[in-house]
Amino acid sequence: MSRNLKELIREMTLEEKAGLCSGADFWNTMGIERLGIPSAMMTDGPHGLRKQEGAADHLGLNKSVNAVCFPAACATASSFDVELMERMGQILGDECQAENVSMLLGPAVNIKRSPLCGRNFEYMSEDPYLTGKMASAYIRGVQSKGIGTSMKHFAVNNQETDRMQISSEVSERAFREIYLPAFEEAVKKAQPKTVMCSYNKINGVFSSENKKLLTDILRDEWGFEGYVVSDWGAVNDRVKGLKAGLDLEMPGSGGYNTRKIIQAVENGELEEEILDRTVERILKVVFSYADNRKAETVFDREKDHKAAADIETECAVLLENKGALPLRKEQKIVYIGEFAKKPRYQGGGSSHINTDSVVSALETAVRKGRAVEYVKGFSSERDEMTEEELKQACEAAAGADAVVIFAGLPDSFESEGYDRTSMELPKCQNRLIEAVAEIQKNVVVVLHNGSPVETPWAESVNAILEMYLGGEGIGEASDRLLFGEANPGGRLAETFPCRLEDNPSYLNFPGDGRTVLYGEDIFVGYRYYDAKKVPVRWAFGHGLSYTEFSYSNMKLSSVEMKDGDVLRVSIDVENTGKMAGSEVVQLYVSGKDSTVPRAVKELKGFAKVILNPGEKKTVTMELCARDFAYYETKIHDWYTPSGIYEIQIGHASDDIRETIEFTFTTDVLLPFTVDMTTTMGELMSHPKTAGKMMEYLEGLSQGEEPKKEDGEVQLVTPEIIAQMPLKSFLSVIPGEAIEQMIVELNSLCQ
Amino acid sequence: MSRNLKELIREMTLEEKAGLCSGADFWNTMGIERLGIPSAMMTDGPHGLRKQEGAADHLGLNKSVNAVCFPAACATASSFDVELMERMGQILGDECQAENVSMLLGPAVNIKRSPLCGRNFEYMSEDPYLTGKMASAYIRGVQSKGIGTSMKHFAVNNQETDRMQISSEVSERAFREIYLPAFEEAVKKAQPKTVMCSYNKINGVFSSENKKLLTDILRDEWGFEGYVVSDWGAVNDRVKGLKAGLDLEMPGSGGYNTRKIIQAVENGELEEEILDRTVERILKVVFSYADNRKAETVFDREKDHKAAADIETECAVLLENKGALPLRKEQKIVYIGEFAKKPRYQGGGSSHINTDSVVSALETAVRKGRAVEYVKGFSSERDEMTEEELKQACEAAAGADAVVIFAGLPDSFESEGYDRTSMELPKCQNRLIEAVAEIQKNVVVVLHNGSPVETPWAESVNAILEMYLGGEGIGEASDRLLFGEANPGGRLAETFPCRLEDNPSYLNFPGDGRTVLYGEDIFVGYRYYDAKKVPVRWAFGHGLSYTEFSYSNMKLSSVEMKDGDVLRVSIDVENTGKMAGSEVVQLYVSGKDSTVPRAVKELKGFAKVILNPGEKKTVTMELCARDFAYYETKIHDWYTPSGIYEIQIGHASDDIRETIEFTFTTDVLLPFTVDMTTTMGELMSHPKTAGKMMEYLEGLSQGEEPKKEDGEVQLVTPEIIAQMPLKSFLSVIPGEAIEQMIVELNSLCQ
Repeated sequence: MSRNLKELIREMTLEEKAGLCSGADFWNTMGIERLGIPSAMMTDGPHGLRKQEGAADHLGLNKSVNAVCFPAACATASSFDVELMERMGQILGDECQAENVSMLLGPAVNIKRSPLCGRNFEYMSEDPYLTGKMASAYIRGVQSKGIGTSMKHFAVNNQETDRMQISSEVSERAFREIYLPAFEEAVKKAQPKTVMCSYNKINGVFSSENKKLLTDILRDEWGFEGYVVSDWGAVNDRVKGLKAGLDLEMPGSGGYNTRKIIQAVENGELEEEILDRTVERILKVVFSYADNRKAETVFDREKDHKAAADIETECAVLLENKGALPLRKEQKIVYIGEFAKKPRYQGGGSSHINTDSVVSALETAVRKGRAVEYVKGFSSERDEMTEEELKQACEAAAGADAVVIFAGLPDSFESEGYDRTSMELPKCQNRLIEAVAEIQKNVVVVLHNGSPVETPWAESVNAILEMYLGGEGIGEASDRLLFGEANPGGRLAETFPCRLEDNPSYLNFPGDGRTVLYGEDIFVGYRYYDAKKVPVRWAFGHGLSYTEFSYSNMKLSSVEMKDGDVLRVSIDVENTGKMAGSEVVQLYVSGKDSTVPRAVKELKGFAKVILNPGEKKTVTMELCARDFAYYETKIHDWYTPSGIYEIQIGHASDDIRETIEFTFTTDVLLPFTVDMTTTMGELMSHPKTAGKMMEYLEGLSQGEEPKKEDGEVQLVTPEIIAQMPLKSFLSVIPGEAIEQMIVELNSLCQ
Repeated sequence: MSRNLKELIREMTLEEKAGLCSGADFWNTMGIERLGIPSAMMTDGPHGLRKQEGAADHLGLNKSVNAVCFPAACATASSFDVELMERMGQILGDECQAENVSMLLGPAVNIKRSPLCGRNFEYMSEDPYLTGKMASAYIRGVQSKGIGTSMKHFAVNNQETDRMQISSEVSERAFREIYLPAFEEAVKKAQPKTVMCSYNKINGVFSSENKKLLTDILRDEWGFEGYVVSDWGAVNDRVKGLKAGLDLEMPGSGGYNTRKIIQAVENGELEEEILDRTVERILKVVFSYADNRKAETVFDREKDHKAAADIETECAVLLENKGALPLRKEQKIVYIGEFAKKPRYQGGGSSHINTDSVVSALETAVRKGRAVEYVKGFSSERDEMTEEELKQACEAAAGADAVVIFAGLPDSFESEGYDRTSMELPKCQNRLIEAVAEIQKNVVVVLHNGSPVETPWAESVNAILEMYLGGEGIGEASDRLLFGEANPGGRLAETFPCRLEDNPSYLNFPGDGRTVLYGEDIFVGYRYYDAKKVPVRWAFGHGLSYTEFSYSNMKLSSVEMKDGDVLRVSIDVENTGKMAGSEVVQLYVSGKDSTVPRAVKELKGFAKVILNPGEKKTVTMELCARDFAYYETKIHDWYTPSGIYEIQIGHASDDIRETIEFTFTTDVLLPFTVDMTTTMGELMSHPKTAGKMMEYLEGLSQGEEPKKEDGEVQLVTPEIIAQMPLKSFLSVIPGEAIEQMIVELNSLCQ
């Protein structure tokens, strides 16, 4: 349905327009009955609907409508499966239609800068490329059902501590290369209906009033067409925000900020055109829902629960396996740990879904008639275990063929609103695992957690299965994986460091209350561990399977590439084991001769392939110049310098199987202006000035060979000369002559 | 002699005044004969005189007057001996008087941020406290002879790569806590006659035109009374620099910048008063030399050579010793490595001293009639060794009682003007050491280097003696130490990391050509290794002796301390071994409950004590509030919060022997202003507002208990509430009411 929004806006009063820029309440935009403008509801997400009909809040405190809890993003990202992500989005979109929810507040795409961020479980990865691809798939899925999404939290919001006031101090390169690309990819490829600005400041400026962020980059550079909504309570100066590109304030401020807008228009501080523009953006999204309403859609909780369990099955990551997995039916198996009975399946805060359909691994085992004994051991809610409980667990373990310990972080350990201060599991769990591992060789640990934990017992146990926060079907998923009814196909979307101190942000997290320095710069996640050669517990991309895969026949469409070219990379992957399974083929790129600091390698492609035993498939991925680029602050743009690059393909970031080098050539020269501070090195190496410099030097060196006397070590090296700027010759060459040289050299650089 | 400089300046023409602001040539200030203003010569240093009478340069290229080369700062700082440093300064001061040199261009006090900095050998330490104390002693020594010093390079100049144009991007805290304190200490305690501004930019502003640095901090805060001279060629915009506080341009620019000054005064761009002020500063220093001339002083090269050897003996650091040292006369000893014959004893660049009196360890051994065989093995100048040379070395080693391998970095590996790219020794040396260590158990390695090297063979050899770049008496010093005629008393003034990647600046060094991010912030040197728990090869403060020391009876003058108090710390140290020796008692402080990120510990006191066997002495050190302070950016000043602090005393940063805690209480409250972004946590914890907030909350909570429904996990925690700013209550409390609260709360904070 085509509407004339401009006409509609002309009919609105100033008060109506200003009013529309704030929520009617906690979850609804303002409707204007006389003009036929509907109110539209949005709800928290992203891995389910948190539709509140009673008391409202944005912290997961009050009751919401019963819904289906899907795996959180920490889990879904580990699938490395864009189709799965899109499918989940479609289901969520249908649920929204059924519940008359116009928009789901997700996906959350902030980069996991520190393993301690309380909200990491809602985020996807330490890697911007993976995040961008998965987020785009989610958005496509939800929006295909006529429902809006709100990609959040824009931007550089990587901690909960002081999140409402902290300023993230980030370099232009890290901002562009690490913290923005997921947003950029999703805006360009999937056009989320809205983007949610974050609470924090970026280099001193609140995101909610950051024109560079909300307008220059988001709209002008990337072509964003929707509206920007504030994180709940993120508005600072409302009028400044409106000018900067913040459209909708959520929740409403009881008219407080509406009055500020009206006043600003009336006193000329705010042009009414800016207000009109914002109103148009909001109305466009509101009507796009109204015009795509499918009220007949049914929320089939049972079907969606099954989907949630299926999805989680694809997400779990098998971290270790010396052979205890898969379990066999005939084995005498003991489940230990209360997580077996009460799994942790989601995190706290705004993403908290109200469900009554959580199925535990124990319940699943009982349903399936498995010969499983359960011993509580430790509590799933607290760091709590009696000596008697430990003793019982050890006794049961001693007599079993295999033991599965269901471990994890209690709810209170990670949540929106605060950060962890340690990566440790509750001490009672480590103690129990270590005790059981001493008396039982087939110990399997199943982890329930939203972010990496320290696993001091990693080498003492037989197998470790990372379920993350896997949604209400987590127990069914773990049962299938443990018993080999499904083959683990998840891969880590984040590094598990050996210990907290190893992580890149360790010294600069969470800052001093006002600022937090992003001192590790572009070296986030595996980019840090690779460059610093810090050993990790499990690397980015790691994940085992019950089968094996071999790689062969890697090919590039060309070993030479220019601006605008597309490079096709193909490789054959074969399932050489005995069970069907999925492999995540990972492609990393690496600059071999960069003059600026670069990561050792960066993920720039991945593909999930399902293979039967003996089956072989060819995977093809495409790369363009941007995939090899860094953000060049000289031109404030991406730049791919000429040079040799390497493409690496493998099973994980620390398990590269094949590599090929190629040569990239660009015609783009960086701008070059000569002044007194320009160095000899720059002048001698730049194609435009090198020739002229040789002429000058020949003129100067006539008969002027520096004396080398006995006993004096002469240390003038090309390195030293290269570093000297023109001004350092002022004592030997007349300044006016140097000025003349500068004019001549600049004329060559035009 | 008292002079009326203001009167003299009134007699000067504008041209004369402007001219005086640039050097007459490479090494001399301008003299004005008609007014009796002498020209004054300055020469490079700091560990000797580089007085050039012929062709001039500032890179160590051309010949200078024959002089005495003392140990470089990397060595002298390792003495941890302020008296020794002052004594060396006095000798240098006398040499200057003898040579009619008015000023020695040193000390160099930049912090060793990276082990790769090419000029580290000229710098003192990774620790600002140690640097400040040692630099002050040097300045006191030189200036006691009527000679000026030039403390350099002011500031944040910690690399050679791109030094003429790079911008050091440093946080206010790291700037104040790491990069400035050595300058601050020396200005306040020793008043160097001049300070030399660095080439680089700091946060985008050239040091040579940085008013905050050269005037606000240096003069207004610290009380600097001398003049600021440019590093040779560091001037960028001359007039801007003059206004910012850069007084003297060196070397002269052939009148180019003099003309700019004249023009600026004539066109009103520069007030003549500013020029007059600069001229007065320069004249004051020039006349202070002229008026303290002692032309009769004799440069006794032989005596000073002995002093250089004595000083170096106190500086060398015994890194390892499993018993091979000291060597015994009756042993059959083989010296391997060309450094035994041609020691590396100084670095390249402006500090390069012309001497013909270098004595090698081999020459010393021959003089002393020691039974030492010499085998070349490897070259001291290149990474070069033939298979035959290796074979000869191994054969000689096999038949010896002990082998001393004289290893180190060739001249070309470290110099002013460029940085190292690796911490490795030449490969041939590592190869030879490993080969010899396989066939000989008494291998001693003597190192000649200006900064840390990787020592992959550290655990295979018996002993390692770090001589650094020890000046012309290095061979005599190593002979005495090897044979136990002297007992090693040096301690590392810098950490030796296990490998290059471990160092704090690794990912952010040397930047991208335009900027270098100081991402490790305040965590430089041991502050980083301690906090990240990164194992190191040898820790800051480490150094062995041929005897042993025990600590006992640590006492504080009080376990409570207030602003303005002086805390006296004492401890007994006893020589429990069999040889006289010196111990460096090191005092570190540690905040136990800081709310801002702090180093695990910081050096805040040290004392060198000489003890005969069985002798015990009490060492007393004094501490004040500043020793426990951090730089609080909220008030742009040092701040010592109330709390518990620990004082640690020991032999090295990784060998603390005794600790005592005490309580510090301050009356100083940080300023507190309430606005919409102030959080509940801040309001509830601040003594001025906590009471009022309780009243508000009681009013609000009347009958409004949030409902807790079944099946809903309630995750509202004190952490979450504490983080909420007032603006986040806009949806539930009228904005105008919050505004009123803010007014009331602020009135309480007055």
